[in-house]
Amino acid sequence: MTPFRVLGHDRNSAARRGLLTTAHAAIPTPVFMPVATHGFMRAVPIEMVIDTGAPVILGNTYHLHVRPGIDRIDALGGLHAFMAWPRAILTDSGGFQITSLADHRRVTDDGIVFKSHVDGSEHVFTPESVVEAQARMGVDIAMLLDECTPHPYTPGESLAGLERTLRWAERAACVPTREGQLRFCITQGGVDPALRSRAARELNAMPFDGNAIGGLGIGEGRERMYETLRTHVPELREDRPRYLMGVGPPGDLVEAVAAGVDMFDCVIPSRHGRNGVVYTDDGVLHVKVARLAERRDPIDPNCACPACRRHSLGYLNHLFKTRDSLMGTLLTLHNLHYFQRLMQRIRDAIDDGTFDALRARVVAAYPPKVPGIRPRPKD
Amino acid sequence: MTPFRVLGHDRNSAARRGLLTTAHAAIPTPVFMPVATHGFMRAVPIEMVIDTGAPVILGNTYHLHVRPGIDRIDALGGLHAFMAWPRAILTDSGGFQITSLADHRRVTDDGIVFKSHVDGSEHVFTPESVVEAQARMGVDIAMLLDECTPHPYTPGESLAGLERTLRWAERAACVPTREGQLRFCITQGGVDPALRSRAARELNAMPFDGNAIGGLGIGEGRERMYETLRTHVPELREDRPRYLMGVGPPGDLVEAVAAGVDMFDCVIPSRHGRNGVVYTDDGVLHVKVARLAERRDPIDPNCACPACRRHSLGYLNHLFKTRDSLMGTLLTLHNLHYFQRLMQRIRDAIDDGTFDALRARVVAAYPPKVPGIRPRPKD
Repeated sequence: MTPFRVLGHDRNSAARRGLLTTAHAAIPTPVFMPVATHGFMRAVPIEMVIDTGAPVILGNTYHLHVRPGIDRIDALGGLHAFMAWPRAILTDSGGFQITSLADHRRVTDDGIVFKSHVDGSEHVFTPESVVEAQARMGVDIAMLLDECTPHPYTPGESLAGLERTLRWAERAACVPTREGQLRFCITQGGVDPALRSRAARELNAMPFDGNAIGGLGIGEGRERMYETLRTHVPELREDRPRYLMGVGPPGDLVEAVAAGVDMFDCVIPSRHGRNGVVYTDDGVLHVKVARLAERRDPIDPNCACPACRRHSLGYLNHLFKTRDSLMGTLLTLHNLHYFQRLMQRIRDAIDDGTFDALRARVVAAYPPKVPGIRPRPKD
Repeated sequence: MTPFRVLGHDRNSAARRGLLTTAHAAIPTPVFMPVATHGFMRAVPIEMVIDTGAPVILGNTYHLHVRPGIDRIDALGGLHAFMAWPRAILTDSGGFQITSLADHRRVTDDGIVFKSHVDGSEHVFTPESVVEAQARMGVDIAMLLDECTPHPYTPGESLAGLERTLRWAERAACVPTREGQLRFCITQGGVDPALRSRAARELNAMPFDGNAIGGLGIGEGRERMYETLRTHVPELREDRPRYLMGVGPPGDLVEAVAAGVDMFDCVIPSRHGRNGVVYTDDGVLHVKVARLAERRDPIDPNCACPACRRHSLGYLNHLFKTRDSLMGTLLTLHNLHYFQRLMQRIRDAIDDGTFDALRARVVAAYPPKVPGIRPRPKD
């Protein structure tokens, strides 16, 4: 049985509805995956993350490897038991994070040698060890080790990163899969259409369950990202889910869905929440602004999150001023609810044939001129 | 109708069971009140505080006056609506906090002139203005303005603080009470039995609904606090609840209950929780200690808190190491549940005639030699 089924297409774009079946959850797509890098959602009790309805959450192999360590997670019953998350888990391989976070990084054809940013100890990641680590953690979806060439890159660097990523994918394909675990490969090649085509062609032929698109949203600019998606996504197999890594704000989500992307993850709901920024249908709102201090209404009266069900904007403004972590908890929760509800509306709109109108409304509230949000590695 | 009824007495101590009826909750005593100084429980969503079962929570008039201000709370619907707490609220007057926190404090017979620690603005608290502020906030139980003489004190200072507190109580008694609001006076007099007796005698004759005991647990030492309670509590009217302010760890709670105290508040469940310390029947546990990193069991398998229902000690140890605020949230919640359950066990034990045995077990786990926990003003 193939784990992914396409259930329908939008008439006016490449947007599609799908269902990805994993060991711990059936995931309706398009889907947004909250990021729990270290095995927890920053500032939010896991039961409240469950209440957002998210069917799948993200962990990071690099971070979990350096702390608490794969052995420890294994001893504590695997990643699901460790973080008390009952639904699906996708772990990123950590290639991107090592590139931007670890000290004394040395990438060779064999793999990556690096020092932990936590305690300076030396570690080696290979294409094989990374899928083995994810097998031991028992996650639903494992990501291959890739090399994400940092932006700005020369054509030569971009080519080298892609070729290494492809060779590593071939090696990972030789490692037996843990039963019930899916494996996604990652395309690289920057914004070069020829490199992206080659990535798609070669990876489409390898035995993986999904295609992730790496190396976008890292500084190349929104228009070039959209352009790349428009040409690159159609090259990826129709029968596999397409996952745009590390993206993004609502405007990017609808544009990428329109290009045929099925899966997303991004730290902005929690990072922005902890900084006092909430997402609404009219764009973002900073709860610190003085004019909100007297507002008795919630962020959004139609939102079912704990902040909107109980608290006024005036109260949230008070929490900002007192600088208690409770503000980050409540605003992260609002944002997580907002992103889940947005994806539900996107799925409904594709089903109903009204995706065009929703896309236009979201882009109007979150226009591309808003500076791109780049994933920072510490999350 | 008198708001407080004594329901029963312990045979072997002065401990008693009671019921305090307030506008928003019937409060079984002995009771422990969690502290939400600024109108929220630090690090914990209010619905999770509600889930601890606490019938009453504490706010602080000084803190709420300087930020967000009584006018703002009034405009946002009163303190219950502001903080979304449906049960009873007791607000401390803030006399203690001004003494230890505000700048340029000047106490006169008329009241206290001080500068806000938030923005340096000048304010005046009088015995009248403080009860009026609490009436405007609509709390269930208002505390009078008192002067808590900081420890160490001379006999003369202690006497002066008491006399001012008594004069202020007389003035507050002349301010009409908001309908449905109870008012508690506060005894002072340090550890001097004669001063305490005088405080009790004079305040017993004034028209208040409860007697708070101030000026203890501020550095005088555990034995002197216990001694003072043993002689002072019996002097307080039997038909009014007795509230020991700012106390304390479990050992102090059972000893003070044995002396006849009915109500308590303390910041230690949240302050210690945020620092990685949890309360158990065997004493406190520091989740950071290395030997806990591999433990699959929770803090306490019999605890119903979100941390114990879902998470291993190994996971909590991981949260400590990553220094995320989620650890403070979960450990505060455990401690709040622990203190509520301890009070329930104390009430049941008084009912069942087994309070002696419970008291001995708690004192063994929390012996008096543990250094006293002094309230710090910022909470």
